[in-house]
Amino acid sequence: MVTMNRQVLLAARPQGAVREENFRIVDAPIPKPGDGEVLVKNDWLSLDPYMRGRMNEAKSYATPVAIGEVMVGQTVGEVLESRDPAFKPGDKVLTSLGWQLHGAAKGKTLRKIDAVRAPASYYLGILGMPGITAWFGLTEIGEPKAGETLVVSAASGAVGSVVGQLGRSMGCRVVGIAGGKAKCDYVVQELGFDACIDHKVGNFGERLCEACPKGIDVDFENVGGAVLDTLLGMMNLSSRIVICGLVAEYNATEPYGYKRLRSILVNRIRMQGMLVFDWADRYDEAIEALSGYLGAGKLKYRESIVEGIDSAPRGLIGLLKGENFGKQLVKLA
Amino acid sequence: MVTMNRQVLLAARPQGAVREENFRIVDAPIPKPGDGEVLVKNDWLSLDPYMRGRMNEAKSYATPVAIGEVMVGQTVGEVLESRDPAFKPGDKVLTSLGWQLHGAAKGKTLRKIDAVRAPASYYLGILGMPGITAWFGLTEIGEPKAGETLVVSAASGAVGSVVGQLGRSMGCRVVGIAGGKAKCDYVVQELGFDACIDHKVGNFGERLCEACPKGIDVDFENVGGAVLDTLLGMMNLSSRIVICGLVAEYNATEPYGYKRLRSILVNRIRMQGMLVFDWADRYDEAIEALSGYLGAGKLKYRESIVEGIDSAPRGLIGLLKGENFGKQLVKLA
Repeated sequence: MVTMNRQVLLAARPQGAVREENFRIVDAPIPKPGDGEVLVKNDWLSLDPYMRGRMNEAKSYATPVAIGEVMVGQTVGEVLESRDPAFKPGDKVLTSLGWQLHGAAKGKTLRKIDAVRAPASYYLGILGMPGITAWFGLTEIGEPKAGETLVVSAASGAVGSVVGQLGRSMGCRVVGIAGGKAKCDYVVQELGFDACIDHKVGNFGERLCEACPKGIDVDFENVGGAVLDTLLGMMNLSSRIVICGLVAEYNATEPYGYKRLRSILVNRIRMQGMLVFDWADRYDEAIEALSGYLGAGKLKYRESIVEGIDSAPRGLIGLLKGENFGKQLVKLA
Repeated sequence: MVTMNRQVLLAARPQGAVREENFRIVDAPIPKPGDGEVLVKNDWLSLDPYMRGRMNEAKSYATPVAIGEVMVGQTVGEVLESRDPAFKPGDKVLTSLGWQLHGAAKGKTLRKIDAVRAPASYYLGILGMPGITAWFGLTEIGEPKAGETLVVSAASGAVGSVVGQLGRSMGCRVVGIAGGKAKCDYVVQELGFDACIDHKVGNFGERLCEACPKGIDVDFENVGGAVLDTLLGMMNLSSRIVICGLVAEYNATEPYGYKRLRSILVNRIRMQGMLVFDWADRYDEAIEALSGYLGAGKLKYRESIVEGIDSAPRGLIGLLKGENFGKQLVKLA
């Protein structure tokens, strides 16, 4: 029987890009669940861009991870032992236990998942935070109408891939932005976007313009920086920009200087930031809707998997560089 | 009887700041009204920051003024002769005749004003485009709630002064931003704002922070540039930024590089551009509301007047430098 618990701790705050030295891998005893707590063995760990913000000293959405603390993150796992009557051994659950193989948490912080309806790992991706983010960001802020042009950056990523496929189902012309030919091909050929522009190749703005002959009505922004600044100049009257992520800025030591803000005035653009937690009381609504699209074969989904908890730092570093291809996961068991 | 019509034409497009040489003053025959047209003698010309955009080659909100054309602008005046049965000599009207003493226009482009309810010039200011802009921008985009903190830049100007007074009536803490001690004193002592910060004095951000101990819930932005970038860092969760004007950018040859856009994501800010024309079918609603506040003594109003059409170029140049103090008008008659 396994008696030790492997954990990844934050060892030092990154200056600019994240490096493996920012983490420390340790073995600790498996905790005993206290009253009302549940002991979980984690099967999958989700890696997400927001984690970069939590490694900083400064407060972003939430309190930073302290030096020496287990890195934050969502997992799916299996209940080993329960002191909360709502859970029993064998239940599959979604947790916030972070980068570790085992953990004990209050039952109310866990969410049972239906691993028959969809693979357990999907609850970290298309039926989890990224999918729910895509759903509410697009429907509540982007508000696309049939016939409009929707642009999605990080189009092959966990959020972007869902946004674009939903947009197609809603009757939009959907243009993705991604880094590299392989991702762009996938976005068009597998996910069914109308076009996908490689931002790593020259004349980005020109090629994006060609792909959006009627301008842009909705930009679902996951990247920011020069990509967003280019898009700002192409937005239509009364268009919407969903600010879901600014991953181009997360590793940067100097913030980007956006030069086309005047377009917001001239074109009466609505630009709005979002965080999925703002819809915390409505997650079920999104999961229902996404499951429907998934069941109808209207949502394709791809996972990018690294094996073993020791590979988690490398997985996050790759994700922040855009090396992942689909939803980034760490397979723990 | 006057037979000639004095006009101010756009002579050359400005490079950076507007100069008197960009205009040419000419005398032309007074036009004869055609069928359905009305001849108007203008009494007041409104000068507004948007005029700077119309002097550029590039399309902004609307088609640029052509070289040799009469400068655009709203006036109030008196009907001299009418070939539209809806108007008769002596009627006071709001027009878009631009920078000239007389003009003929289709009756449907004119709007009768009630010069008994308020002085005719008010229909270019507090009961005109600036007041209506303040009303819809604040109520439809800013959506202030009692107890919130509202910041207004260009606080002593035609729009800002109305926004701030409305905000006070709605129960907000209202902090103005203006250039110079005289304007700041006026904003606090006469208009009743809770505070006003002089952006021309050092430590602007620090002093603004002190004046907004609970952060900022609504920014009604008329200025842009460094002022807006500073404000971005002080906005509260779920706050709103009304982009009504970016006057700091209009004369600039290089656009400003905004560095704090990440705050839109972290704080889920909604930033939205506006133009009063978007509510063209609802102007009466705003004029009714503003007249009510005005009649109840809850809106103070100040005009900045230059005399004679020949002074109009100087008036606009001053306005764009922030030299005006209240709504900028040219008294034509």
